Amino acid sequence: MSDSDLQAQAAKKDAEDELRGKRGEFVLDDTVYLDGNSLGALPAVVQERVADVISRQWGKLRIRSWDESGWWTAPERIGDRIAPLVGAAPGQIVVGDSTSVNVFKALVAAVRMVRDSGEGRDEIVVDATTFPTDGYIAQSAARMTGCTLVPVTPAEVPGVLGPRTAVVLLNHADYRTGRLHDLPGLTAAVHDAGALVVWDLCHTAGALPVGLDAHGVDLAVGCTYKYLNGGPGSPAYIYVRADLQARFDSPLPGWNSHAEPFGMRPEFEAAQGAVRGRVGTPDILSMLALDAALDVWDGVSIEAVRAKSLALTDFFVDCVTAYVPEGRVDVLTPAAHGQRGSQVALRSEDAGDVMRRLVEQGVVGDFRAPDVLRFGFTPLYVGFADVERAAGVLARTLGEPAG
Amino acid sequence: MSDSDLQAQAAKKDAEDELRGKRGEFVLDDTVYLDGNSLGALPAVVQERVADVISRQWGKLRIRSWDESGWWTAPERIGDRIAPLVGAAPGQIVVGDSTSVNVFKALVAAVRMVRDSGEGRDEIVVDATTFPTDGYIAQSAARMTGCTLVPVTPAEVPGVLGPRTAVVLLNHADYRTGRLHDLPGLTAAVHDAGALVVWDLCHTAGALPVGLDAHGVDLAVGCTYKYLNGGPGSPAYIYVRADLQARFDSPLPGWNSHAEPFGMRPEFEAAQGAVRGRVGTPDILSMLALDAALDVWDGVSIEAVRAKSLALTDFFVDCVTAYVPEGRVDVLTPAAHGQRGSQVALRSEDAGDVMRRLVEQGVVGDFRAPDVLRFGFTPLYVGFADVERAAGVLARTLGEPAG
Repeated sequence: MSDSDLQAQAAKKDAEDELRGKRGEFVLDDTVYLDGNSLGALPAVVQERVADVISRQWGKLRIRSWDESGWWTAPERIGDRIAPLVGAAPGQIVVGDSTSVNVFKALVAAVRMVRDSGEGRDEIVVDATTFPTDGYIAQSAARMTGCTLVPVTPAEVPGVLGPRTAVVLLNHADYRTGRLHDLPGLTAAVHDAGALVVWDLCHTAGALPVGLDAHGVDLAVGCTYKYLNGGPGSPAYIYVRADLQARFDSPLPGWNSHAEPFGMRPEFEAAQGAVRGRVGTPDILSMLALDAALDVWDGVSIEAVRAKSLALTDFFVDCVTAYVPEGRVDVLTPAAHGQRGSQVALRSEDAGDVMRRLVEQGVVGDFRAPDVLRFGFTPLYVGFADVERAAGVLARTLGEPAG
Repeated sequence: MSDSDLQAQAAKKDAEDELRGKRGEFVLDDTVYLDGNSLGALPAVVQERVADVISRQWGKLRIRSWDESGWWTAPERIGDRIAPLVGAAPGQIVVGDSTSVNVFKALVAAVRMVRDSGEGRDEIVVDATTFPTDGYIAQSAARMTGCTLVPVTPAEVPGVLGPRTAVVLLNHADYRTGRLHDLPGLTAAVHDAGALVVWDLCHTAGALPVGLDAHGVDLAVGCTYKYLNGGPGSPAYIYVRADLQARFDSPLPGWNSHAEPFGMRPEFEAAQGAVRGRVGTPDILSMLALDAALDVWDGVSIEAVRAKSLALTDFFVDCVTAYVPEGRVDVLTPAAHGQRGSQVALRSEDAGDVMRRLVEQGVVGDFRAPDVLRFGFTPLYVGFADVERAAGVLARTLGEPAG
């Protein structure tokens, strides 16, 4: 297909895009920003809302804001705003801490739940292709609970499950290739083996329907600065399924998870509900920036986001196939929709140099060593003309001698 | 002494106050704000700086800010700004996570250090009068390291130290009474017993010289939202003495503490230095708000802050003694300067109701169940006229029938 054909297709797709109005709610420029899978773009509402949090809530009301501005309950209130995006009923998600810290809470609490049932389970199975921090934290959780770590690829998980399996930690999407793993099927397999599963949703929450409740997921964690656009290092969250909350025994029982936090009692007594996942004083500025950022989801269905995400990634692969000389890049991301997240990864020998030159030309993705070009597609603000332009710049860059 | 004598004294003290110019760097109103030991007032510079972080660093530079705006190194850079306030040379403090999470890191790492030396030490001694979260987290750290928790008052600590002691967790100041504990003496006693000490500096950092390096403290943690004015729930910090860093084996080895964080290697290899105390992606908005807030310390000596703090608390007790009918309140805070932090706690039977009425009259302290009125004195923005006014309002309130 010619450039002009694909440009015409892009224009038609943009005109028909039911989410196109959302783009205006973000601060964007003429960059094609395909790195929302690393740091989401800025929702315009955040600036004003954070200014109010600082100048009025902190500056004028000061300590009174813990009650009057709802600071104290922000972790569970904002958790309930994330809940519908990942298919969770209210009361099961709290926001706070980093993803790494939440992985630790989830894994240790899961091992304890399994052991409370009286079984001699002592293996933590972990996705060996995971974003490394999950593996490091899993290793620590295994060490501190007397478990053995079993690192395998997601495809190998069913084969290693057995009577020794306590918990399985999996990523919903592979951060390098963009491959989407089978959450319903793997969750069922783990349950069949009598174990619990913890899903890391960093690369899927806000990009596609997750269906935590529908698929009976036990525990989940995720960050909020990718497809949820919460800002750099914005607080992560933990999901604890309602019927497991009474058995959630946190390794980080800070005062915020106490049944009576202001009672200042020397003995710990866990609160009821998802607030057991809280630890210390919540980081209010970052948390309320995230709260504001979530406003862009008002009136948006995650199914519409998924449909557009697939259309964007399909179209990107079409444009790359049409524009880039054959053999110059390999598409690492699966073609099947059911195995694809919201990013496209291309393997290229000189990927580091290529990405540097793309960024110079206003097409921002990122590079993952040793040879991967990653492009993330955030349906709320990326359009089809952006996609066509990115593929064109990529093709021209790959056709030029290395800089 | 008459009201007018004390008012004249206040005016003279304010005129002679070398820190009086600092008050103008904060957003204040006609409230007498004596709750900076809970949430410090807003430094005026924060609003503008956070607006720039959001609109330019996040909004325009986006992902590039991890390098170009110094986001990635913020935890150690800001740690180095806190360091001189607590008597630490650079390279020993990193900022991030909550105090509770840092207490967990410090205690578990300390137990591991002690055990690496081959000794059978299995007791964690903890300040039983501590802010409760420290006790809850210490209980968890003990459980996860196979230790026994030994809760005693700070005065009882020397008596329980012995060959089984692994680590001692102490608060530098008691959050209820404002009593300052003997950091040099207790540190030396713990070392004499062959154990390590972790100090919680929440109620002293920014209020008085701590002298971490000078007194050979092993590990320390603290929050930044009290006397450091970092904002609601701003990130906490951890201090790991330079010569212990190579043995700091974190229970939360997230990718930020890896020797090569962007290598995405499956095996964990700890970074060198204080960055071992980092865990996940740092919370940039809150962290850079704290960075801005620390600007108010430029040109301020912590010794001058301490001198004014003692003068303020002395004067408050003088005014209370002069104005409040004898027997109506008991001063819980020690009279000896060496045993006093930067707050004054008064016991009053109807403390909850009294504090509610004080707040209505523009004198803001806080109430701690069952019977404590807490007044915190932040030398950077509290003046002597404020102190006299607060004591006067308190005396009138105590003289009125309960509302």
